Amino acid sequence: MPIVNQIIEVETDTGIGIYNITSQIKDLLAATSIQNGQVLIFSRHTTTALTINEYEERLLEDVKVFLRKLAPEENRYLHNDIHLRVGIPDDEPMNAHSHLMAMMLTTSEIVPIVDGSLGLGTYQSILFFELDGPRKRTVFCQISGE
Amino acid sequence: MPIVNQIIEVETDTGIGIYNITSQIKDLLAATSIQNGQVLIFSRHTTTALTINEYEERLLEDVKVFLRKLAPEENRYLHNDIHLRVGIPDDEPMNAHSHLMAMMLTTSEIVPIVDGSLGLGTYQSILFFELDGPRKRTVFCQISGE
Amino acid sequence: MPIVNQIIEVETDTGIGIYNITSQIKDLLAATSIQNGQVLIFSRHTTTALTINEYEERLLEDVKVFLRKLAPEENRYLHNDIHLRVGIPDDEPMNAHSHLMAMMLTTSEIVPIVDGSLGLGTYQSILFFELDGPRKRTVFCQISGE
Repeated sequence: MPIVNQIIEVETDTGIGIYNITSQIKDLLAATSIQNGQVLIFSRHTTTALTINEYEERLLEDVKVFLRKLAPEENRYLHNDIHLRVGIPDDEPMNAHSHLMAMMLTTSEIVPIVDGSLGLGTYQSILFFELDGPRKRTVFCQISGE
Repeated sequence: MPIVNQIIEVETDTGIGIYNITSQIKDLLAATSIQNGQVLIFSRHTTTALTINEYEERLLEDVKVFLRKLAPEENRYLHNDIHLRVGIPDDEPMNAHSHLMAMMLTTSEIVPIVDGSLGLGTYQSILFFELDGPRKRTVFCQISGE
Repeated sequence: MPIVNQIIEVETDTGIGIYNITSQIKDLLAATSIQNGQVLIFSRHTTTALTINEYEERLLEDVKVFLRKLAPEENRYLHNDIHLRVGIPDDEPMNAHSHLMAMMLTTSEIVPIVDGSLGLGTYQSILFFELDGPRKRTVFCQISGE
């Protein structure tokens, strides 16, 4: 059974950003001959995350408001006492809220491959969340099947 | 390695509903000869979701209360300004809260298959969440292994 | 394609505990000859969960505070009316909050295997959450690939 590993690169903007990576994943799948199987999408950072939902501009703004209220940046977090942590560079960001948001979303998503296409519903897109930008990020994709 | 794709249909009631689809997935597995592998369960809508937890009537009511407090329907959401969105039918539901709830749960779950059975713990059931019913919904199941 | 099923045992402390099981999973992988594929990690209880994030002591305390605020133990929950549930032992814990926390985290995580190693990012660890300890718990691991 072929297993194809690929990396998608995403250059993100400041703060929270939501990036639609569906077409990039479709392209990676089209470059294989796999007709039936799965795509594993894996966020490789602790302040990024994934979800599968609708890519609608106004909804994405609602999601950002929701996440900021769920884990407010301005709250007091022990993780943000950078000077009390060992072996940390001075420019380490105060990003406890970003870690909490990431945990409420997900690190790994699996999308079925059916007849050579992603088995997504009509309104489903694969969304990559930057929760502590700007950064250069990578998303791992593993396509397997037959 | 055999890969079997199946669809489960769920006709849902108004509002939030939690449906136990474990026995349907067991039946799909039993119809194959796969002894060792995985079942991928994939929610194909943006206002439905999955989780694996206990199917206990009173807990399910607690979950509904919890979700309604987490993402209140009555809050102001940009996504609910239907008239400001392009190419949307007039009867489009105001369901931003349903999308937010779906993102806090999950779109895909993987359950291991061990010795021909689902590797669930004693109290674990596979739960399908309707977050914007009533609708006719489909859940995708991919059974793979050997 | 080989599929290897393993169990990790975790003896947990009182209340909420976060356990780093990354090295145990690395050891299980090293005992196979699989170079390319996936590890499925599956929480087999309804009051435990998984996430992949940074194992940093002060962040873990922030996560506990966050979860306790998200689903406070002292809230009123129908599930905690033990006497109104059927077929339940008298020493059943009042743990509705633990179930809710588990649903906000995840039951299953998939980590890619690349060149014989876990494809985790620099700061990523596989974290097992006890949400209703102390207990003896088991985590299921399925390693598959080629």
